Amino acid sequence: MACKFCEIAAGKEKQRVFAENAHAAALLDYRPIVPGHSLVIPKKHYESIAQIPTAELHAIFALVGDVEKAVMGATGAQGVDLQQHFRPFIPEGELKVNHLHFHILPRKPYDELFEKMEAVTAMRARPKPGELEAMAKKIKTAMDKG
Amino acid sequence: MACKFCEIAAGKEKQRVFAENAHAAALLDYRPIVPGHSLVIPKKHYESIAQIPTAELHAIFALVGDVEKAVMGATGAQGVDLQQHFRPFIPEGELKVNHLHFHILPRKPYDELFEKMEAVTAMRARPKPGELEAMAKKIKTAMDKG
Repeated sequence: MACKFCEIAAGKEKQRVFAENAHAAALLDYRPIVPGHSLVIPKKHYESIAQIPTAELHAIFALVGDVEKAVMGATGAQGVDLQQHFRPFIPEGELKVNHLHFHILPRKPYDELFEKMEAVTAMRARPKPGELEAMAKKIKTAMDKG
Repeated sequence: MACKFCEIAAGKEKQRVFAENAHAAALLDYRPIVPGHSLVIPKKHYESIAQIPTAELHAIFALVGDVEKAVMGATGAQGVDLQQHFRPFIPEGELKVNHLHFHILPRKPYDELFEKMEAVTAMRARPKPGELEAMAKKIKTAMDKG
């Protein structure tokens, strides 16, 4: 299957692409969670952040900063969320594209997304003494292994 | 009020900090949504991505890549989510710190977070013809204004 975002980077679906630079493009998500829901993608096909060469990562984040500001301006939002998901276990489909993309979601006080996220906020645990310390050691060991 | 993450960057709460480089530090969220829920913060106090000087942004993302890999290794997760929220309208408190931070959430197939996010997935609209094009024009105009 052709990669949808590689095709967009190559010039397809121009009507929903609103900005680009040497290494990144910005477009509207075609199934927006909120109006103005945008995506910033590398022009080349990568699937995780660690794969992206430094110069391209810089270009992506330069565009992310500008897009966040413009999306807030265009929608009258006072806040913005940035999200990027690496979930190789979900098969590609209408709502899943492997080509790495950053979601940019304009946010307003007490918007519908806030309400829906209350179930996630309720998941926040209160770890017992020592639990975080034990997890920190485990991650540190994994980092040292590289 | 002293900034909690400025204090951590200065060496407080060492037991939940598990990695750092010249400009960024990685620590465990003290109210984790899932076990291994980590944060990557700039050592200096910034509140939005656009404020961060390029060299510091690079250091942050170098650490994000390493932390994602280590957190997946330590928790046995096959996926990872990256999130960053700019919501100046929410007052600082137990679950809100203004000092910019990237959340890193290890993800597994059909985990509890997936289940809770189904309500958000259900929000995804199917825009009418022309709607995305009109929004793209609006954002483009906002970008041109800078």
